[in-house]
This record gives sequence, C-alpha cells and structure tokens, in this order.
Amino acid sequence: MSVKSNLTRRIFHLAALAGGLVAAGPAWAQAPADPLSSWNDGKAKSAILDFVRRVTTEGGPDYVKPDERIATFDNDGTLWAEQPAYFQLLFAFDEVRRLAPSHPEWKETEPFRSVLAGDTKGLAASGEKGLLQLVAATHSGMTTSEFEASVANWLATARHPTKQRPYTEMVYQPQLELLAYLRANGFKTFIVSGGGVEFMRVFAQKAYGIPPEQVVGSSGVVEFRAGPDGKLDLFKEPKVEFVDDGAGKPVGINRFIGRRPILAFGNSDGDLQMLQYATAGDGARLALILHHTDGEREWAYDRNSSFGKLDKALEEGRARGWAIVDMKTDWKTVFLSSR
Amino acid sequence: MSVKSNLTRRIFHLAALAGGLVAAGPAWAQAPADPLSSWNDGKAKSAILDFVRRVTTEGGPDYVKPDERIATFDNDGTLWAEQPAYFQLLFAFDEVRRLAPSHPEWKETEPFRSVLAGDTKGLAASGEKGLLQLVAATHSGMTTSEFEASVANWLATARHPTKQRPYTEMVYQPQLELLAYLRANGFKTFIVSGGGVEFMRVFAQKAYGIPPEQVVGSSGVVEFRAGPDGKLDLFKEPKVEFVDDGAGKPVGINRFIGRRPILAFGNSDGDLQMLQYATAGDGARLALILHHTDGEREWAYDRNSSFGKLDKALEEGRARGWAIVDMKTDWKTVFLSSR
Repeated sequence: MSVKSNLTRRIFHLAALAGGLVAAGPAWAQAPADPLSSWNDGKAKSAILDFVRRVTTEGGPDYVKPDERIATFDNDGTLWAEQPAYFQLLFAFDEVRRLAPSHPEWKETEPFRSVLAGDTKGLAASGEKGLLQLVAATHSGMTTSEFEASVANWLATARHPTKQRPYTEMVYQPQLELLAYLRANGFKTFIVSGGGVEFMRVFAQKAYGIPPEQVVGSSGVVEFRAGPDGKLDLFKEPKVEFVDDGAGKPVGINRFIGRRPILAFGNSDGDLQMLQYATAGDGARLALILHHTDGEREWAYDRNSSFGKLDKALEEGRARGWAIVDMKTDWKTVFLSSR
Repeated sequence: MSVKSNLTRRIFHLAALAGGLVAAGPAWAQAPADPLSSWNDGKAKSAILDFVRRVTTEGGPDYVKPDERIATFDNDGTLWAEQPAYFQLLFAFDEVRRLAPSHPEWKETEPFRSVLAGDTKGLAASGEKGLLQLVAATHSGMTTSEFEASVANWLATARHPTKQRPYTEMVYQPQLELLAYLRANGFKTFIVSGGGVEFMRVFAQKAYGIPPEQVVGSSGVVEFRAGPDGKLDLFKEPKVEFVDDGAGKPVGINRFIGRRPILAFGNSDGDLQMLQYATAGDGARLALILHHTDGEREWAYDRNSSFGKLDKALEEGRARGWAIVDMKTDWKTVFLSSR
C-alpha cells in the first residue's frame, strides 16, 4: 500500500469523524444511501427532498440559516399511533387499574368503576368531565420525578391492546428517518403536541432523538414547595394549565420556541393552526399532513374519528397544496423496523 | 519537508476541524489561553474550573453526560445590569414617551402622566398597579412581531441613563466568558429570568449566544387569531400569564427545559428557589450568586435594593457554601469589553 493511499484513508477517516460519521467503507464505492428509505417515491417524498435542498442551498433564493431551520411535529398520529385511543389515555386507564388496590372507593365511584369493570359505555357516559377526573387521579398528587417513574415503568411493561407491541415500538419508521434527515441538514426538531409535556419527555429522547427541552405539550399546574417530609420539590397539582392543541399550538410554539417553524407536520384538525402559522411566514415553508389511509398495516380514519379527527385541515391542505402524506401509498413500512 | 510532517500537519488540521476549531498555529507552541480571563484568581473562579473539570472527566465519580449539562442563568443583575431599574421597565417608560403623541389622554391619566412628567414620586404612588398598567400599555395590543420590532428599535437607539452606553453593552464580560466556557465544555446554557420572555429573546442570541428556544421568562397571554385585516397572527393580550420568579423559576425550568440544571447562577432572592432546585439534585452541583459589591465600576447593593434585592439567598448561600461571586474582587472587568 502506497504512502499516498494510506494518507488518503487516514484523512478520509478524520473527515468522516468531523462530520460525526464513522465511515463503514470507502464512500466513493457505495451508492449514496437513501435517507428516506422507508418512503416510496412520490409527491410527498419529492416535496420533502426538494424543500430541504432549497433551504440548505447557500446563495440560493430560499436559503435559511441553520439556526432558523425549526421543524415542529405533532406526536399522536404523526410520530406514533393514536388508535384505539391516545396512548396517554390508555396509560391513565392502566394506572387506575394499578392504583386501584389503594383506592377501594373507586369500585363504586365513576368514572373509575367503569375503567375497572371495562365498561366502555359507562366511561363514555362520564364524558369529558370523567376523562379529566381520570387524568387528575393519575397525573397529579405526586412529584414530577414520581410521575416520570410511573410513565417509564408503564412504557417498559405495557403492550398495545391489539398490536401487542410496546408503545415505544408504535412509532413510525418513515418519521424517524425524516427526523434524522432533517437534523442531518441542520434542522432543530421539536415535538408540538396536545399530549402532556411531562409524559412525552420520558420517551422522546430515546424514541425520536428529541431532548426534553425540545418537547412542547399540554401541562398541568406544578408547584415548587415543601412536601410532607419537609423537602422542597415540584408537585403536580390537579389543575390544567395549558392545552397545546388547535390555536394553542402556535401559542405554545411562540412561548417555548420563540421562532416560527419553517416546516410543520401534523395529522389532525388540532394541527391546523400550527400549519397555518408555519406557512404564514416569509420564504420557503413546508406543511405536511399524515393521512391515515392504511386499514391493514395501521388504521384508516379521518373525518369521523374520535381520536385524530382530520376534516378541515385536510380541506385546507388540499386547497393550499400542502403535502398530504398517504400512509398506504407513501410509506413502505409503517412501524419501527427492528434494528 | 518530509512526507511524515506533511501528513502530521494535515491530520492536525483535520482534527482541529473535527473539534470545530481552525488552528491559528501549532497549538503546542502556545500557552493555553485562560477561558475566564476577566475573572481574578480566587475561590469563585476555582469553584467554576473545578466543577467543570469534575463533571466533564469521563470515568470520574462526578461525570455528567453532555446532554445533562444544563446551566441556567438569571438575566437582570446576573448577565446584565439592573440599576437604576430593570431595563425592561426603562423600556416601558421610553415606550410611553414614544407612544404619547397618539395618546393625548395620557397627559392627565396616571401612571402615564407621571412618566411623561418625569415625576418619580407620582410614579411610586401608583404602585404595582401602576407598573402593571405601564407594562400592559407597552407590551400588548400588538402582534408578537410588532413587539419584537419595538424592542429591537429601542435596543438600537436607547442609552443607559447614567452609563450612556447601549443597553446591550451593559452585559457582563466575565459572564460572557463563563457562558462560552460552559458551552465549550458541552453545557447547554439557558436564561431563566423574571424578565419577559419575548423581550429577552430579541437580544439573547446576539448578546449572549443563547438562542430564543433557550430563554425562559415571564409571559403575558398570547392569542392566535385573525386581526383587523383578517390575517391570522399572534396577538399579545394585556394579561399576565406566568411569572418566572421565585418559586416560579423551578416551575419554569420544569415546564420549558424539563431537566434539573446542574449549574445555576443568580443574584437575588428571586433566584433562591432556582438555586435550591438545582442543588437538590443528585451528583455534582454548582450554585453561584453574584454579589453586587462594586459601587465604582457598577453599583453596590443587596438587602435594601428595590431591584435585585439579595438577602435570604445570600444567607442561605453562605450557610451552604455556594459560590458567592464578589464583583469587586472577583472580576477584572465588569461590562462588555470593546471587541
């Protein structure tokens, strides 16, 4: 082996390290890997590749500085599934069952009785008030660390009722690729979801590579005070503070991120205002809507769904030429591929 | 020149690039620059250097992964000055004067009359209610972009009443060095301040290298709705939403950052709970308090100051061995050095 090829190899190796990549082999001998390999070729994939190319082309008319490459993603129904119900609600039901032995009164008190008896009709009858009671009972009256531990424990042990997979494997493989692709192109990726911020932060880093400080969500009141043992801590109170949904999403983005996203991805009417806000800025913008059209691999639903209802946003998206991602035709794979 | 030295030089150059640094010359020929050159040697500087060494030493007992190296800084009185009054309040006064021509009624309505007449006694008499009215009049009734523009315009033109410098030059040189030093050691630096989040975000990136999404502060209600022209936008409403001060600071940290800081730096009793929260975590922790002791170069104040009162936090800090930074003896320079 000549000195020159040795030099070339060492420089190549260091250059790869410089880019945060360890070369698996000489790059010039391989076809470039498709960063969105779980996406079928089509309008949606082209829209993504084209947008990223435009905003990262220095000197081009649509160039955006890395600092300003903010991308926001809804979570339920956009990054992971949301059927038969939002997973955080399934967590609340499981928690009621887990905590029931210390709450004998729940056997005779709605909405707890219905959850424990598996009585969906009774639960439905308790309405939104009932759901809020369930959330309060399972999401407050503890420190933030205790809550985190209960979510972590649930994620480690619970299984989806029909797919039988851990919930953290109900994340969408094509979206993981998209998040990684955006980050490799200098984007900062955020979750902006109606889900509870403290719930999502437990798994967002591991599941999506999104750190806690880049998760925006709904929240309950938290107080910093001395607990029963006199130790100062953060206590979760049974009171809703902020609902990061609908018109709350641009408000949450403004409050937590402080910049307007140039790319926003949602899947329901609760994401409409986020998409409107993102696209109302100057320069290149990309709005995407995931349309759940795949009743075989996932679920097919839109206008009539109790969870992730997609109606007005679909109309507006079609009228305005937003990228409508058709799960059935645009995605080669749906859920996390075993790695 | 031998092939080997050529190789060495090229590898060195690439390795420097890998570290994000372009070598200005052979590193082994230079004494390492002091990253905290505006700090005098002493207990405070040693505490910082020692802490950073401990949490970044891989395999050491106090090692903290880069992801978890969260540092939070108060702003007023910690990163920039706060005398004779919080600069945001001086902004509000200046705005009242600027907007007065379109508000002839202010000449006869308190607290506006007092501001316009320079009547500090009258202003004091209007109390907290008066201050809130001034803040509402100058911080709401506009879009978030309009507000940003008014702050940017003020920062570009206003001068500090006694120091005659632009406010963005009233930032502390030693703290800029500390922020840069922490970031060079893998820390993520955040502002956690009682100041308005939208006010601070206008200058935090340029003044401190802290991006908008790493600024936590107080906020007013913001609504996403159609304006008079039918265009959807974010409107600032005259209603306080969140006060990021005192016990609100740990709450704000939990809400926005979602992790407990390992280093926290404040200067007043409003920072006490942030310091308590940071130091209550496991592992190595560093709490710092800036004590304003320099009546010549800056201002000397603590227990009896209307702005930045430091009393209980100083007691607790001394009792618990927190690093008390004495501005007069610990800092070689106070304000931003001309660059």
